[in-house]
Amino acid sequence: MTKKWVYTLGEIDQAEAAVDGDWDKVRGLLGGKGANLGEMNRLGVPVPPGFTITTEACNAYLEAGRTLPPELWDQVLAALRAMEEETGKRFGDPSSPLLVSCRSGAKFSMPGMMDTVLDIGLNDEVTDGMIKLTGDERFAYDSYRRLIQMFGTVVLGIRDEPFEDTLAIFREERGVKSDSDLTGEDLRDIVAKFKEIVRRRARIEFPSSAEEQLRMAVEAVFSSWNGKRARDYRQAANIAHDLGTGVNVVTMVYGNLGDNSATGVAMSRNATTGENALEGDYLMNAQGEDVVAGTRPTKPLNELRGEMPAIYEEFESIARRLEKHYREMQDMEFTVERGKLWILQTRTGKRTAQAAVRIAVELAEEGLITREEAVLRLDPAQIEFFLHPQFSAAAKAGTSPLAHGLNVSPGAATGRVAFDPDLAERWAKENGREVLLVRPETKPDDVHGMLAAEGILTSSGGRTSHAALVARQFGKPAVVGAAELKIDLGARSMTVGELEIREGDWISIDGTTGEVFEGKLDTVVPDITDQWLARLMDWADEFRRLGVRANADYPEDAERARKYGAEGIGLCRTEHMFFEPERLPIVQRMITTRSPGERREAVAALLPFQRKDFAGLFRAMDGLPVIIRLIDPPLHEFLPAFEELTRELADLQIQITSARTLDEVEEITDKLSETRSMLDRVGSLRESNPMLGLRGVRLGILIPELTRMQVRAVIEAACEVSQDGVKAIPEIMIPLTSHVNELERQRGVLEAEAKKVMEEQGVEVSYQFGTMIEVPRAALTADQIAEYAEFLSFGTNDLTQTTFAMSRDDAESGFLVEYIGQGILPTNPFATLDEDGVAKLMGLAVAGARKTRPDIETGVCGEHGGDPASIAICDRLGLNYVSCSPYRVPIARLSAAQSALRARDLKSRRPPPRAAQRT
Amino acid sequence: MTKKWVYTLGEIDQAEAAVDGDWDKVRGLLGGKGANLGEMNRLGVPVPPGFTITTEACNAYLEAGRTLPPELWDQVLAALRAMEEETGKRFGDPSSPLLVSCRSGAKFSMPGMMDTVLDIGLNDEVTDGMIKLTGDERFAYDSYRRLIQMFGTVVLGIRDEPFEDTLAIFREERGVKSDSDLTGEDLRDIVAKFKEIVRRRARIEFPSSAEEQLRMAVEAVFSSWNGKRARDYRQAANIAHDLGTGVNVVTMVYGNLGDNSATGVAMSRNATTGENALEGDYLMNAQGEDVVAGTRPTKPLNELRGEMPAIYEEFESIARRLEKHYREMQDMEFTVERGKLWILQTRTGKRTAQAAVRIAVELAEEGLITREEAVLRLDPAQIEFFLHPQFSAAAKAGTSPLAHGLNVSPGAATGRVAFDPDLAERWAKENGREVLLVRPETKPDDVHGMLAAEGILTSSGGRTSHAALVARQFGKPAVVGAAELKIDLGARSMTVGELEIREGDWISIDGTTGEVFEGKLDTVVPDITDQWLARLMDWADEFRRLGVRANADYPEDAERARKYGAEGIGLCRTEHMFFEPERLPIVQRMITTRSPGERREAVAALLPFQRKDFAGLFRAMDGLPVIIRLIDPPLHEFLPAFEELTRELADLQIQITSARTLDEVEEITDKLSETRSMLDRVGSLRESNPMLGLRGVRLGILIPELTRMQVRAVIEAACEVSQDGVKAIPEIMIPLTSHVNELERQRGVLEAEAKKVMEEQGVEVSYQFGTMIEVPRAALTADQIAEYAEFLSFGTNDLTQTTFAMSRDDAESGFLVEYIGQGILPTNPFATLDEDGVAKLMGLAVAGARKTRPDIETGVCGEHGGDPASIAICDRLGLNYVSCSPYRVPIARLSAAQSALRARDLKSRRPPPRAAQRT
Repeated sequence: MTKKWVYTLGEIDQAEAAVDGDWDKVRGLLGGKGANLGEMNRLGVPVPPGFTITTEACNAYLEAGRTLPPELWDQVLAALRAMEEETGKRFGDPSSPLLVSCRSGAKFSMPGMMDTVLDIGLNDEVTDGMIKLTGDERFAYDSYRRLIQMFGTVVLGIRDEPFEDTLAIFREERGVKSDSDLTGEDLRDIVAKFKEIVRRRARIEFPSSAEEQLRMAVEAVFSSWNGKRARDYRQAANIAHDLGTGVNVVTMVYGNLGDNSATGVAMSRNATTGENALEGDYLMNAQGEDVVAGTRPTKPLNELRGEMPAIYEEFESIARRLEKHYREMQDMEFTVERGKLWILQTRTGKRTAQAAVRIAVELAEEGLITREEAVLRLDPAQIEFFLHPQFSAAAKAGTSPLAHGLNVSPGAATGRVAFDPDLAERWAKENGREVLLVRPETKPDDVHGMLAAEGILTSSGGRTSHAALVARQFGKPAVVGAAELKIDLGARSMTVGELEIREGDWISIDGTTGEVFEGKLDTVVPDITDQWLARLMDWADEFRRLGVRANADYPEDAERARKYGAEGIGLCRTEHMFFEPERLPIVQRMITTRSPGERREAVAALLPFQRKDFAGLFRAMDGLPVIIRLIDPPLHEFLPAFEELTRELADLQIQITSARTLDEVEEITDKLSETRSMLDRVGSLRESNPMLGLRGVRLGILIPELTRMQVRAVIEAACEVSQDGVKAIPEIMIPLTSHVNELERQRGVLEAEAKKVMEEQGVEVSYQFGTMIEVPRAALTADQIAEYAEFLSFGTNDLTQTTFAMSRDDAESGFLVEYIGQGILPTNPFATLDEDGVAKLMGLAVAGARKTRPDIETGVCGEHGGDPASIAICDRLGLNYVSCSPYRVPIARLSAAQSALRARDLKSRRPPPRAAQRT
Repeated sequence: MTKKWVYTLGEIDQAEAAVDGDWDKVRGLLGGKGANLGEMNRLGVPVPPGFTITTEACNAYLEAGRTLPPELWDQVLAALRAMEEETGKRFGDPSSPLLVSCRSGAKFSMPGMMDTVLDIGLNDEVTDGMIKLTGDERFAYDSYRRLIQMFGTVVLGIRDEPFEDTLAIFREERGVKSDSDLTGEDLRDIVAKFKEIVRRRARIEFPSSAEEQLRMAVEAVFSSWNGKRARDYRQAANIAHDLGTGVNVVTMVYGNLGDNSATGVAMSRNATTGENALEGDYLMNAQGEDVVAGTRPTKPLNELRGEMPAIYEEFESIARRLEKHYREMQDMEFTVERGKLWILQTRTGKRTAQAAVRIAVELAEEGLITREEAVLRLDPAQIEFFLHPQFSAAAKAGTSPLAHGLNVSPGAATGRVAFDPDLAERWAKENGREVLLVRPETKPDDVHGMLAAEGILTSSGGRTSHAALVARQFGKPAVVGAAELKIDLGARSMTVGELEIREGDWISIDGTTGEVFEGKLDTVVPDITDQWLARLMDWADEFRRLGVRANADYPEDAERARKYGAEGIGLCRTEHMFFEPERLPIVQRMITTRSPGERREAVAALLPFQRKDFAGLFRAMDGLPVIIRLIDPPLHEFLPAFEELTRELADLQIQITSARTLDEVEEITDKLSETRSMLDRVGSLRESNPMLGLRGVRLGILIPELTRMQVRAVIEAACEVSQDGVKAIPEIMIPLTSHVNELERQRGVLEAEAKKVMEEQGVEVSYQFGTMIEVPRAALTADQIAEYAEFLSFGTNDLTQTTFAMSRDDAESGFLVEYIGQGILPTNPFATLDEDGVAKLMGLAVAGARKTRPDIETGVCGEHGGDPASIAICDRLGLNYVSCSPYRVPIARLSAAQSALRARDLKSRRPPPRAAQRT
């Protein structure tokens, strides 16, 4: 049987039957756009007649080395004949010309990334025919020049500049501002020039055959699937490269046929706030691309209600119907051709994180989706967005905006101005600079620079412009259409009134308000008090199994963590407290002295500090568990660096030769001897691989007085706060255990101290002893370790380092970059847990530990604890909790809920009936 | 029922029944000495009547805080009554006194380490009675003074010096050389002095009650189990601390009752060479301790044949009977009391490694044991002994011995003279010096110094002296009884004739010949051509399953490895070749250049060197596999150290300020810029944890031209040697893989190069690609890795480092020492594979890899490949081979055989019938 490569919009039922009614597969086969066109047609929504070439055809074409599969073209021609029948027009026939658009449409929406050619079917004769039919020479030649320009750039790969330059010359010669002010005669001349450009640049004659135009356009769409910008986008958005794109060939309709014509785009809900109200832009008497390109100032959609009340009402009703059908906020394109409304496209609407949350919550409350679905709809990364910096009130009070634009993607961003995306990327990646990408408007080619930038600022474009869409999707603060900015790309500067801002200068933008500021404004991170988010997080908490704790070293952090929903502290790094200026000298004395007495004194001097630290944490976490990790890093981290001391010594030796007085000599000699002695000690503590050296429990075993002091501080603090009715639940964690005996010894010493303190204080504190699992051997022998550990916490940073034998410090600035670039590693294992290796080890550990101690508490306290993909792994491993930075607690809560829901879904998954899935 | 704490020698059947006939448990219950006494008694060998207090009694005593368990003493008294009945004498009765010895006897023989008290039962009255009965005042008082001296030192803890000083004073006053020349009257006075010493030093009266003496002696034996020297010995010999010691109370017999009395010790075969002939020392008219202490020159045993022909014949027959019964060479003590032969003790004889091999082989050939048992009897460490250095012929030709002694433990040793064991230990451990321990004679207290020393030299003592026994057991070269040496411990020097040797001077000893040399003689390592060893190794090869390869980087090493029985090269470290003076500059140029062209040139320049190296290896291993590991270490290892360059730079900067001529300035400036540029490059290659950094396959991926060159060299070399009919079997090994993709990429690049070379050369080489498993992740994902690896080799050094997160460089000179000392780690995991952690990971890897590729070849190439305990683990893991240094190949062969035999034994183990086990 012949393969069916082409489906007309009316054949959507056949397409669905071909993939066993699986709607996801329909979208895979026809692409999202094609599937939606067919679906809209079936729903009775007015869609111009057309057909879709399948993604399978695209893949077949690319696999065959850019050759159309046999019979494809016959099927296209048959579908064209069907369109001709339906419209009563004929493709390439000047007397009744059928014109078509040719657009890509992949399974997942990739806005602006794929190529489109409009007005296919025009040539000299057909244009003449059009003029006869419409009496509108200007419209006919404008369409023709658009076809040649789009065909030239998209299909033939000619740069856009010669076309645009030609238009600019004409505008200048005619003294007009806009292309729409050019006359039909002008446009006829322009068509001739454009054909000349094609001839000169592509060395071919612009094809006059309508079918030839269509065939070349279809092949260009297919080929664009493998274009650089498409690949880059897919890379960034994590879309598979083997899906292929469909091609949609649809009857052209025109919004530029007079005052009873219009064109526009609209969202069924507000894409910035999520409010349940139609939102969009339109232009009277214009083509769709005029709206998207932002070259003409658009009108807000609600003005259409006044200009075309019946059309507005019809459109509003269709929007509701589509939203209800797709159970999701819709992004629609429409055209009114001489009073007739056509819907050209509908798709799931992009939105800000704030809008995403509100829309999900309201859809659930309206009963369109379930609460589970609402929770699953959010990308956890979007939550991070709520935690994006905002400018501090003080910073804003002290300045006034330089310019205003559209607030298309919220959050505050500061950075150095970069006027081109390559520079933005280079500055950000190579120099580590914060960069703001500033462009007149952005194009798909600019995405790499947008991703590298802290934020995006454009001087033109609207809410649905490329810049706005991309910024929202990737959570970059953005202000677009700030028309007061005059950008001179050649001079690499921009001016606002008198002020000139040059490339490299600092500016600040507020994507929440649309303001642009000169210089670098201070930012603060907001509290997440959004009512919709709060509701969503409540639902998430109901669904999740996995606990969420926070890593916090200071009471402020603990308080924030608790506010964000942390159910305890999963990691307090006690040594962070040692670095404070007041304490560091004591710590250094403790390390450098060779006298046991002096060491004891120094340790004792640290006790009150630590007790105070811990008391603060206990108060903040009243009634919740607090895991306190005993000292972990190698001691030399508390001392000056060896190289620094060596340099200092050399300097002093040079100084002494030029000393003039005996006093000076004496002073330098003293310093010399001090430096030498410090150098000695630092030298003796140097290790060839400190990561694998004297740290963690090894320190506790060699210097038991230090960890004993820490445990004393923990228990004393717990006793102290209990007098104020605060319930402290300390969990004392021993780091870097590799052998059960380490734990046994150290726990013995520490437990004795804890008992002693409780007896001294006459207070009973309920506490636990546990250990980090951050060394492969600890994971492998977790059954033994669980004999002495009441809880285990996976230190996945170190566990990843040792499991891979990869030093993070060295690798992330070195070969790891190369590895990820070359695809040797699929992701950075320090960002997302390595499932096959590190997580496998964790699984062995959990199983082993539970064999010994079935109720043992297990968690993760590495950075992975805040990464959604890693959280899902931890959930599957059956851990009790993840612990992450306070800011990531909401992300972890949502991720944990999604993981639980997905697991539930996997367990109970049945092929859902078609109706249930789509209505 | 009352616990039975005491067994008479006649009750050996009861003891055996009490432990279900398990003879090993009988030895556990009664101690080796007690069990053997009972066994000899049962066999009809003449043993003086006596009884044994069980090891259980010892443990009960120690656990109860040094309190005898109830009823123990009643049982002792009952056993004493039985002895009285048998001998017709009475304990403490002057008219017919029974005297007894009291000796420790643990399950495993611990020569000289436990305490003995003789002549218990003597007091003033009994001594008088003895004189009346024997008419020998001298004998009676000599026995009495021995009792007081031994009781004083062993039971009461008085130092030996006051007793010995007293004897020395008497000898001096009387003008005699030997104690045996003192008269009965002298000895009576000495007894009075000795009692005074006890009174003054121990503040008690020497107990006159025989029972009191016995009770105190028994408790002292019990307590000595936990004495420092016993614990040290057990630590060194790996004997459990909870076995406890038995106490043997046996009727005293006397070899010093005249010319029809004698005493001696003997081995049933020669303990040095293994020859099947009685060997021993004896003294006429003497006590046993005189023989062991070496205070009187002993006679070789065969002279007894002339002096006491009947006794000799009886003894010889008993020795044969005992050897046949125990199926093992015996070490016996005997006494002839007035013409009656008594056997006081028999036990398995200590022997040199050479003797151990010959005895095992001959016992098997005589049919006393099986070949399997012969192979199992050798401690693999003893094989190492065959590889001990010997003095080179040239070194010996150039000098002549300073002195001669007894060649009690073979092998050559050189070191600095240390006259006391503490100093020997300190010098060896803290200063890393080679030390020879030189003492007049050694005592159990000296063992720590003996273990630390390269060899042992004494000026007195015989073949069975403490020094000889300990040296043999621990494989230390030793010369004893070198009487020409006059040692002055006070002056810390010794003289030989005119020559004075001071502490710290170098000397050399040859334990194989008994020679002592001045200075430091050159040593060579002998070939293992011993005929008995060769036979034993043949048997071992028949029994083992595990293959044995060698780690060798040079053709010489490969040749030696092959001679020692290696079945291939398990690891050739190609980078060792890069360090040779001719090549290092090229390697440095390759690393430091920033020009790709120059780098290519440098790599190309290395090719001929590597090809030559590999060709040499292939010729040496003709027909056997050779695993060649591609470059592994971080590149900075080939460059000067950062600190060195920093210092050099500082020096140059100072030099330039004092330069006088323009030429000088120019020269220094050139050097400065060169040094700066090298420092730059070294700085950029520095890593915080090089062990976990850019090395292994990571280098191969970043600099593929380097590993490609190595593979080209391998294949070109294989092609080259094949023209001479040599069969090269290269296995190309990629180091440090942590992710299968690394292997896939690298193998792709290298395989293409290999194919290219074979095409160029027109020769087909059979080769394999494989990888090291030295990173936990590689072990965990071995199923994936086996897709691209045809063989796996465990790099257990690095695998141990990463599994423990323990840098060997840092740990072994730091906390690891403390860990092993404190017993936190049972052994050094870099010496013996960590079974619970690292070996578990290896087991997972083997299982995973075999799932993917059932016939995958697996081996070990870390240092563990030469460690017997680790080899047994590798055998259990089912690896195909171990690879170790050429010198350890024979050890590995034996260990592998033993492991296989033990596994076989475990599988077929049935409780053996009593007769089979003991006859």
